[in-house]
Amino acid sequence: MKLNRRALLKGSAGILGSASLASAQLQDPLPSWNAGPAKQGIVDFVRATTDPSSPKFVPPTERVATFDQDGTLWVEHPMYSQVVYCLDRVPVVVKAKPDLANAEPFRTVMSGNGEAMAKLSTDDLMKILAATLTGMSVDDFEAEVKKWLVVARDPRWKKPYTKLTYAPMIELLNYVRASGYSTYIVTGGGQDFVRVYSDRVYGIPPEQVVGTAGGTTYGYDQNGQPFLTKDPKLLLNDNNAGKPEGIHLMIGRRPYAAFGNSTGDRQMLEYTKAGGGERLAMLVLHDDAQREYAYGPAQGLPDTKVGTFTQALYDEAKSKGWIVISMKSDWKSIFAGGLLLSGRVTGK
Amino acid sequence: MKLNRRALLKGSAGILGSASLASAQLQDPLPSWNAGPAKQGIVDFVRATTDPSSPKFVPPTERVATFDQDGTLWVEHPMYSQVVYCLDRVPVVVKAKPDLANAEPFRTVMSGNGEAMAKLSTDDLMKILAATLTGMSVDDFEAEVKKWLVVARDPRWKKPYTKLTYAPMIELLNYVRASGYSTYIVTGGGQDFVRVYSDRVYGIPPEQVVGTAGGTTYGYDQNGQPFLTKDPKLLLNDNNAGKPEGIHLMIGRRPYAAFGNSTGDRQMLEYTKAGGGERLAMLVLHDDAQREYAYGPAQGLPDTKVGTFTQALYDEAKSKGWIVISMKSDWKSIFAGGLLLSGRVTGK
Repeated sequence: MKLNRRALLKGSAGILGSASLASAQLQDPLPSWNAGPAKQGIVDFVRATTDPSSPKFVPPTERVATFDQDGTLWVEHPMYSQVVYCLDRVPVVVKAKPDLANAEPFRTVMSGNGEAMAKLSTDDLMKILAATLTGMSVDDFEAEVKKWLVVARDPRWKKPYTKLTYAPMIELLNYVRASGYSTYIVTGGGQDFVRVYSDRVYGIPPEQVVGTAGGTTYGYDQNGQPFLTKDPKLLLNDNNAGKPEGIHLMIGRRPYAAFGNSTGDRQMLEYTKAGGGERLAMLVLHDDAQREYAYGPAQGLPDTKVGTFTQALYDEAKSKGWIVISMKSDWKSIFAGGLLLSGRVTGK
Repeated sequence: MKLNRRALLKGSAGILGSASLASAQLQDPLPSWNAGPAKQGIVDFVRATTDPSSPKFVPPTERVATFDQDGTLWVEHPMYSQVVYCLDRVPVVVKAKPDLANAEPFRTVMSGNGEAMAKLSTDDLMKILAATLTGMSVDDFEAEVKKWLVVARDPRWKKPYTKLTYAPMIELLNYVRASGYSTYIVTGGGQDFVRVYSDRVYGIPPEQVVGTAGGTTYGYDQNGQPFLTKDPKLLLNDNNAGKPEGIHLMIGRRPYAAFGNSTGDRQMLEYTKAGGGERLAMLVLHDDAQREYAYGPAQGLPDTKVGTFTQALYDEAKSKGWIVISMKSDWKSIFAGGLLLSGRVTGK
């Protein structure tokens, strides 16, 4: 399996060559998944909803699958990458508005005192997010995020954040897309932030990213050219109940499959399963401290504020037929290294 | 041409049969358009952006075309169909909440006095819209609109509103979709309202409808089943500057082509043309009182409050290279009768 795995990670330029690769994919679309209820649940769902002879067949235009991002498609610990971006941007904002240097919470961030920063309240964090994510044009914002993604490094793996995608989930994205599903990100993260890299990293184009979204204001520059400025006004808080609300707003269809990893995904999974026919709801449980991280607090795992998976959520999953994915047991390998593996099927 | 036209209107089951039809379409993708700058502008734009050898070639994933609905894709006079829906719903709302019967503006609507109704203020209209478009589940709303569309009749043509689509625009939708463009409706009308019929009527699926949108609230029924309730809270007023703002929120890409018919579309066209490369901006001018309606007040046409096309907009179009479509001169025939004509290419 090791040879095969390495070939897959290299994509179509791998040692096996693209023809053999395609045939390997035909045999097993999910090579990074160990055999078990999680893998079987996915394969059974895809078969039930895409085989024209199946009583649960779903027409291709209605095939929608939604994926949380942080902790579901890529690493979210020790801190959401977007929050790191915002903290990294504070010096730039302070340079542009020097009076902020002596105002909290900016003074604390500028001090570089990690202990003090860890104690920042949610209100403080909101001030930092507003100052670093709004007040500039959408084009400038996109350019800044692009630059940051090249230089920023995850503190544990010393790699760009975009290299910390999960191989089993990338395979899953490819598999359901090849089965006619449109894949959407539905994230608590910023919609504009995720759109900067979603197409390259996940094969998910900007119009299929639903996230926490602020308003924009249309205006004109000194040459009379129109542009959009990012507002602090929050339109959609795409967490918890905001996820099904955002899905209705942006997609207008109920998903047939939904994937998450925390209490913030609970309502999205409920909403998905409440539809008729065959529906799939899955939650990634981070129970692999060695290869990634272990946190819950479900199942006695350490508690966390970043991607909380409570025991109540675990119990609801078990009672309602949602499938919990154990990173430790269900995933043969963890990281995709930012590669789209077997190639991409976008626009669906 | 008459035989050909009738065959097209009958779709692939037409007299010419589907093979001849396809070949007729190859020869001329826009048979309802008279030769002239409008038709030529469309064909030139499509060629420039889709021919791989063209310096203005646009990759398929970036091909986005946006269409206003009322007055651009179908009839908007004497009144937007959604406003008619809301007025038609007032008796149901009053029956459910009898105390409204003596409160304005509901009393005026219940009186059936057309003269008094025509004098209702914008605030009054907003109250009627809020009472008839919000406060129910999204599923109930969809079911009500579906029922109404079957029975409601346009006062002049005595036909369902969905039969009053413009043949040249349906051909245009099909033509650009067949050329790899994703077609979006970007309407001042209600997003949820238009989504009910957009796929069937235009081949545009719900996820490609951007419109004026309110919030929803996630909750549970007495059986613990989740559902979404439509809120009066306005998230997006998809008119004027709200159109480019809505395009950014819902699509996240700048269109390469945009089509409208009124001052409410001005910013969408500006925003579209401000992008690099080849961009197409077009405005339908209703100058055909005999076959449809004539209103402006551009070019000395009668003034109107429904779909205003000012002389300033006309002048801006002329000075900026936006193409004004004359219904009278550019359109060989007006109505598609609700048919998708040459068949549909959806999901793009």
